[in-house]
Amino acid sequence: MKNQKAKGSNAERELVKLFNEAGWGAIRIAGSGSSKYPAPDILAGNAIRRVAIECKVTKENKKYLQKAEIEQLRTFAQSFGAESWIGVKFVNDGWFFLMLEDLEEKGSSWSVSVELAKRRGLSIAELMQRDHLI
Amino acid sequence: MKNQKAKGSNAERELVKLFNEAGWGAIRIAGSGSSKYPAPDILAGNAIRRVAIECKVTKENKKYLQKAEIEQLRTFAQSFGAESWIGVKFVNDGWFFLMLEDLEEKGSSWSVSVELAKRRGLSIAELMQRDHLI
Repeated sequence: MKNQKAKGSNAERELVKLFNEAGWGAIRIAGSGSSKYPAPDILAGNAIRRVAIECKVTKENKKYLQKAEIEQLRTFAQSFGAESWIGVKFVNDGWFFLMLEDLEEKGSSWSVSVELAKRRGLSIAELMQRDHLI
Repeated sequence: MKNQKAKGSNAERELVKLFNEAGWGAIRIAGSGSSKYPAPDILAGNAIRRVAIECKVTKENKKYLQKAEIEQLRTFAQSFGAESWIGVKFVNDGWFFLMLEDLEEKGSSWSVSVELAKRRGLSIAELMQRDHLI
């Protein structure tokens, strides 16, 4: 479990690095998920856009998300004035970024499969270059 | 030193609470000050504004800031697209928020005295209501 958490933090640091190297401001959020107030894992911004990202890493072909995580992300993004994104790192296929409406929803379960990510997801370069606001 | 750090974290949590209660999105930043990339202590935003805040707490009548902290805040705020603010909590007089150009600069030393804070600083309510962007 600790190892799992460390993997998550390392993946978050990797994203912060990629955004900073591209000239964005980017930070990891303290106590994300355990704070009393809604928060994503990462916030990145440039002169015109702000993106809030919930990050996931998996060795499997499908990653499940809790409804509460989605709700937190959506609530924070609305209050703060940011776009909502789910970033999933599939260990063998790298990062994909999806909008909430692109997730697969079945009852109270939300998920992203590798196939879905490849079909609907953006690479980090595409996420950064996306030229319209939500 | 540990106690000092805990006081700083508590003050940051207090600000995050105040912003959230006012309907803003607000978060504390993980590893602020120790990260490889520039970052403030707090980020808060609403539909139209984003504020990056470097937070300080003191029992004294004057708080000194390191030039590197100011530079980090300015650099981050420019990349991310946020306003730069210094938030100082004087234990007996509460919070004051100052713009970088309002700090007292003497050589490489920057400071905020209680007098300066009272003359030039904003309360948190004033900071939130400030209706023009920088």
